[in-house]
Amino acid sequence: MAAITGVSPLAVPLPNLGPIAGVRLGASEAGIRYKGRRDLMMMVFPRGTTVAGVFTRNRCPGAPIDWCRSVLEAGKARALVVNAGNANVFTGKAGVATVKATAKAAGALAGCPATQVFLASTGVIGEVLPAERITEALPALAETLSEDGWEDAARAIMTTDTFPKGSTRSAIIGGVEVTINGIAKGSGMIAPDMATMLCFIATDAAIPSAALQSLLSKGVGPSFNSVTVDSDTSTSDTVLLFATGAAGNPRVPESGGAMLRDFRRALDEVLHDLALQVVRDGEGAQKLVRITVTGAANKKSARAIAFAIAHSPLVKTAIAGEDANWGRIVMAVGKSGEPADRDRLAIGVGGTWMARNGTVVPGYDEAPVVAHMKRREVDIAVDIGLGDGEATVWTCDLTHGYIDINGSYRS
Amino acid sequence: MAAITGVSPLAVPLPNLGPIAGVRLGASEAGIRYKGRRDLMMMVFPRGTTVAGVFTRNRCPGAPIDWCRSVLEAGKARALVVNAGNANVFTGKAGVATVKATAKAAGALAGCPATQVFLASTGVIGEVLPAERITEALPALAETLSEDGWEDAARAIMTTDTFPKGSTRSAIIGGVEVTINGIAKGSGMIAPDMATMLCFIATDAAIPSAALQSLLSKGVGPSFNSVTVDSDTSTSDTVLLFATGAAGNPRVPESGGAMLRDFRRALDEVLHDLALQVVRDGEGAQKLVRITVTGAANKKSARAIAFAIAHSPLVKTAIAGEDANWGRIVMAVGKSGEPADRDRLAIGVGGTWMARNGTVVPGYDEAPVVAHMKRREVDIAVDIGLGDGEATVWTCDLTHGYIDINGSYRS
Repeated sequence: MAAITGVSPLAVPLPNLGPIAGVRLGASEAGIRYKGRRDLMMMVFPRGTTVAGVFTRNRCPGAPIDWCRSVLEAGKARALVVNAGNANVFTGKAGVATVKATAKAAGALAGCPATQVFLASTGVIGEVLPAERITEALPALAETLSEDGWEDAARAIMTTDTFPKGSTRSAIIGGVEVTINGIAKGSGMIAPDMATMLCFIATDAAIPSAALQSLLSKGVGPSFNSVTVDSDTSTSDTVLLFATGAAGNPRVPESGGAMLRDFRRALDEVLHDLALQVVRDGEGAQKLVRITVTGAANKKSARAIAFAIAHSPLVKTAIAGEDANWGRIVMAVGKSGEPADRDRLAIGVGGTWMARNGTVVPGYDEAPVVAHMKRREVDIAVDIGLGDGEATVWTCDLTHGYIDINGSYRS
Repeated sequence: MAAITGVSPLAVPLPNLGPIAGVRLGASEAGIRYKGRRDLMMMVFPRGTTVAGVFTRNRCPGAPIDWCRSVLEAGKARALVVNAGNANVFTGKAGVATVKATAKAAGALAGCPATQVFLASTGVIGEVLPAERITEALPALAETLSEDGWEDAARAIMTTDTFPKGSTRSAIIGGVEVTINGIAKGSGMIAPDMATMLCFIATDAAIPSAALQSLLSKGVGPSFNSVTVDSDTSTSDTVLLFATGAAGNPRVPESGGAMLRDFRRALDEVLHDLALQVVRDGEGAQKLVRITVTGAANKKSARAIAFAIAHSPLVKTAIAGEDANWGRIVMAVGKSGEPADRDRLAIGVGGTWMARNGTVVPGYDEAPVVAHMKRREVDIAVDIGLGDGEATVWTCDLTHGYIDINGSYRS
């Protein structure tokens, strides 16, 4: 494939990710596909750690997704193993065997049943992931785990991400300070793979798994489920949230509730931060685009319209060309199939309304819009003029870089 | 914008389009946007001509679409006026006024009420289409109409199409031979426009408008509604079918029926031929791709899966790279949300099955697949293994050319 060099112009620095009490983690070279870099990551958690997860809606998920879904029901976690370079997707019975062998080996090292081991894989599809590459590397890796391994972990899960992604926040639960660390990998590819999004979050808070799952399920709505790079849903998307309880906060009820208000705020910030970092590293991305739809018939309709705009290759290529092409936005609103009245539509860029009431704004001055389109971060606003449904989604532009990355021969 | 030069490598020659009895047509330079080429096309039809039409499902259609829908109900046509260079979309009241003025002027020349004039426009969105450019050019154009104007007409409606598109067939109705001519324009753009598809078909057959509409509505299903270039639905897509009756075939009942069997075959061939020509001229297209889905839960599900594959930028960039990347096809099947069982899926290219039962075919030999992927026409087959639903759709690859065409500044 064509060599993709350089860091995304939208990159942000990796924050300093300090320890999360109870979490030990690290990375090593298993040589699964990459040479000369760490490609295997492990986290271990103390007894009593709860877990929540959300997974891809793709109907053809990888073997690790099936595994995580089945073991998630018990809500307990003691270890996480992630590899980069091979997604273990569409690998039939061999894929299932690899998952089982990995979980068994990691469980032995962590001193827990295999069913308390969580797994994720990212990389090439349809090639058997040799279990022994992982199981042979795990014992040495397990020896080196420490509370300071967050940056190594963030780097080990990268595929062709151009920068490591992390976020950290603190929060108060019942008067006790707790910390949340998260890492993610995004829209890079390994020839010939798709953009797979993985995200792992850990906190030292003590939170029952039911409450944790509720927070996570709601939290991904305005974050990971509100971003798109290229509309293609990976077979491997995974977000896992682990809570060790080591912070010793007062007991949180199963139902969560008001006691978790500040934790929820912090978790939502971590999710939002990481989701946007994924878009910032979208394949070939040169611009981060925020699309805000107001005035739709309802919230669901607003989301559908926002995603129709965010998925449109014509809109995304126009943004790459720094062209405030509102004709294409009109098209995308219309193709969404959602209630819309052409003659009530308003479209703005960077705070300037260009079109209103179904036609260009009288005396429209393109200058501020042209200037805004040259920025790295572009804001598009669409008012449908029908109701009070609102939604915001984020995407990136569609550039030659995307074609370079995805249109090359497998090597 | 970047200069796009050269004819699509997938182009086919324009067939010899002879006269259709009763149809006189021609083209002229109205100077709406282009310089030095014909951009205005007119057809006139004799009294008694019936008409059928299908239009974009985009919820924000252009003023000509609204006009055609409203006048189509009567089923009678005496004239058609089409311009290239300005789509008259999102132009508010000015757009409606232009449509009315054009229809009035053309009706006066054709000797009919404005409501028997059909209109279509393609080109830039959001700029007022000056009615006088058209109304001032029409009288001279009307003087020059002839039965031999089909090639001129096919060329005048082009935007950045790289070749003119036409098709012709004959058929027998009640022992009398009739002829069908069709022209289309497709997936070119005028900065900053989208791919608009226009298609105009005329026949000398005598067919009641209800029967004609039924044939056309069914005919677009496996043709124009089974192709995609970039998943973006234009605000202006139009297919109109005119029947002059000049061939003098025996009377066809309102309900159509068996008498139209051969005509239907011929019409379907014209529609299919033109729809594929549109894909062959898709923006930046280097390969024509046929996607056949079998074994889906039902026909609707098969279509949804086929379009999920055909719309996927990851699949389309892989094809551009001549990479038989079946992992991305698995992803696209899964993201369609339609019933699918990963472990029953089979995927083939060019007649070679690569994957079956959820994994790569044992002993899979990539050589014939690699050879097939280098061809201009690529066949992808997907068997879902669940039911008997089938569908075939066509698309093109996603290349740097698409980004060049759509990612440039408006000039």
